[in-house]
Amino acid sequence: MPLMTSTNAFYAQSGGVTAVINASACGLIETARQNPDKINKVYAGRNGIIGALTEDLIDTSLESTENIAALRHTPSGAFGSCRYKLKSFEENKAQYERLIAVFKAHDIGYFFYNGGGDSQDTTNKLSQLSESMGHNLRCIGIPKTVDNDLPLTDNCPGFGSVAKYVAVSIREAGFDVASMARTSTKVFVLEVMGRHAGWIAAAGGLAAEQEGESPHIILFPEVVFDQQKFLEKVDKTVKKHGFCCIVVSEGVKNPDGQFLAEAGTRDAFGHAQLGGVAPVVAEMIKAEYGYKYHWAVADYLQRAARHIASKTDVDQAYAMGKAAVELALEGKTAVMPTIVRTSNHPYQWTIGYGELKDIANVEQMLPEHYITEDGFGITAACEEYLRPLISGEDYPPYVNGLPSYVRLKNLPVEKILNTPFEV
Amino acid sequence: MPLMTSTNAFYAQSGGVTAVINASACGLIETARQNPDKINKVYAGRNGIIGALTEDLIDTSLESTENIAALRHTPSGAFGSCRYKLKSFEENKAQYERLIAVFKAHDIGYFFYNGGGDSQDTTNKLSQLSESMGHNLRCIGIPKTVDNDLPLTDNCPGFGSVAKYVAVSIREAGFDVASMARTSTKVFVLEVMGRHAGWIAAAGGLAAEQEGESPHIILFPEVVFDQQKFLEKVDKTVKKHGFCCIVVSEGVKNPDGQFLAEAGTRDAFGHAQLGGVAPVVAEMIKAEYGYKYHWAVADYLQRAARHIASKTDVDQAYAMGKAAVELALEGKTAVMPTIVRTSNHPYQWTIGYGELKDIANVEQMLPEHYITEDGFGITAACEEYLRPLISGEDYPPYVNGLPSYVRLKNLPVEKILNTPFEV
Repeated sequence: MPLMTSTNAFYAQSGGVTAVINASACGLIETARQNPDKINKVYAGRNGIIGALTEDLIDTSLESTENIAALRHTPSGAFGSCRYKLKSFEENKAQYERLIAVFKAHDIGYFFYNGGGDSQDTTNKLSQLSESMGHNLRCIGIPKTVDNDLPLTDNCPGFGSVAKYVAVSIREAGFDVASMARTSTKVFVLEVMGRHAGWIAAAGGLAAEQEGESPHIILFPEVVFDQQKFLEKVDKTVKKHGFCCIVVSEGVKNPDGQFLAEAGTRDAFGHAQLGGVAPVVAEMIKAEYGYKYHWAVADYLQRAARHIASKTDVDQAYAMGKAAVELALEGKTAVMPTIVRTSNHPYQWTIGYGELKDIANVEQMLPEHYITEDGFGITAACEEYLRPLISGEDYPPYVNGLPSYVRLKNLPVEKILNTPFEV
Repeated sequence: MPLMTSTNAFYAQSGGVTAVINASACGLIETARQNPDKINKVYAGRNGIIGALTEDLIDTSLESTENIAALRHTPSGAFGSCRYKLKSFEENKAQYERLIAVFKAHDIGYFFYNGGGDSQDTTNKLSQLSESMGHNLRCIGIPKTVDNDLPLTDNCPGFGSVAKYVAVSIREAGFDVASMARTSTKVFVLEVMGRHAGWIAAAGGLAAEQEGESPHIILFPEVVFDQQKFLEKVDKTVKKHGFCCIVVSEGVKNPDGQFLAEAGTRDAFGHAQLGGVAPVVAEMIKAEYGYKYHWAVADYLQRAARHIASKTDVDQAYAMGKAAVELALEGKTAVMPTIVRTSNHPYQWTIGYGELKDIANVEQMLPEHYITEDGFGITAACEEYLRPLISGEDYPPYVNGLPSYVRLKNLPVEKILNTPFEV
């Protein structure tokens, strides 16, 4: 019974990083350190699962208590992440066998994988496989995605902070444009992430608390773009309020199913133009009405913006890392801790867990009743869901006017197999 | 001697707004309220100087103490701003006569104009004119510009907060890209404001405290773009550090003197493409080396970002508004309060003033010795100048997870002339 004694744990970060994924790492490592009788060392994969495949492990036990604590307020993936999806067991058995070989060699009895839907799928497969291969491995997924699209959990760590960034930004831009509209800019367009689901765009809607406040229009990937209806709404808004602020999701599509960003103008060589969807939308308005516009594309700034992170999000990310260890120590495998909302007024949440088989490959989309009938705004139900997720501030410490984010030493664990493996 | 008794004051905001121009308004109005024996009411121009020309004045005395205090933490121009430059006296004498007529009608003995170089010029002209027209008007300029290009003052209110936003953002994006570079994004480009001067782009350089940290390259409008040299530096950086982060000023020009943003590809109709300079630079890199990129355009978000304002900047903006009133009450006219740096270690500043005739129409450019020899970075001297300007945080209050910014009532002053005036 290898789990009766202390074994090592493996932790990896996967996919696009967030402002709070390191808070999950912090919760996990701190909790593991409180249980030395069960967990010896936490090894992290350098650049995610690739680190496991190539036996490139980071020894987190060599990091100071202070530096691990500082992960809580440091954005990005401290050990490196990767966009690397394991193939199915049938397609690439060697990958899975390699993982088990590395874990066996390094006495790893716990596997923690911090990511989105694909990562939960990998974790689930690995759990099944380790059993059939006779290596006792507790496999726990940890939710992370700015896309907020994992099922079973009320929301996903990483989303709340992007949501807060977007809502704060479009409120601030709205104040700016309102000042300028008399003689200058009348239209402002902010492009936000969300290729498939409009969760992030929806969060922009939190900024407007009264009729006439920014944003006036939200363009969701869930709603087919109706150019005429959109333009009319812009014009009406400018005429009524003097200006119009728009949040547009990068995933908005035209009636042909093309991304609007790619369906715009083409360059001299026939390539789709280089800009995003924001300039396409802005130029469309100018062509019709001549309104002066400005546009912004937040891109990585929105998901890296730890300086304006949601306290709720940070707390939940930390709690997920902690709960992952606790679930493993209870002997569970093939599960993921979840956030359970128990009350809206006041907002209260607790921690549950779900089976990975019910989580992997299921996308939680923005419900239809969260979008207003005209397709350009969020409903009261949506606001009630979103509001608590952006609540509270959790400022990082500052040195010399800038947030003080930690860079770990990330020292390697000595290789034992020392055999090459192509990834 | 009309100034011996209490007369009204006029205050207007001009040009592009900032995160802290309302802090100047706050300093001005609070100080005026402390001197009721000399200043009766502060009237603000609705939408800047246009409000004076059209006799559309806002009575700030109807705003509560709390709301005026809240201006200190509210971005944008609370009374509305405008892009409207008065013509020369010879070209449009009627405009100046109209201003004097409105000021006489409303018993206005103080003129405060909060803006950049053009506004200081207008203030200066108005001072001269009021004398020659026999209306006693103390005319004081208040510095404001994110471009940091006014002379005589060490720096300009509004700049420090944009500088902080840009430095924080490129640091956060750098952490993000470093996490992703192994399998995904290797190049990140952030486009910032600064059509003529590289002050804002330079501020990005504060984020990198050690070799290899983001940003690796800054593109200044002061340095003619050398594509080959730039591409080589990008490639070298990616090979050495795994990724490359770039801050590019919107004003960067190619050797032909064209803005790089406009010299990029053209659409099917021959129009310059819609995007900014960031996508042009990013695509250039991809075409040469195939590196995956991301880019962001901060646009208005950078100058509206009161949530991450520099405390130094907020304090100085407030102090300038206060000093403007004090200078007027001392009987001065045709002057602007200035920020005087008295020490770097520790950073200390005091308040001085300059004559508007020495300020109007003079642009303070980024000195050559602030840019490194290769043209891609900032020198230690530049850092010493910039660092204190972003120091300190001054968070606004939050309600429901969002910064609580004030909207004033902005009630009109009853018209006395009530004659139309075309602007």
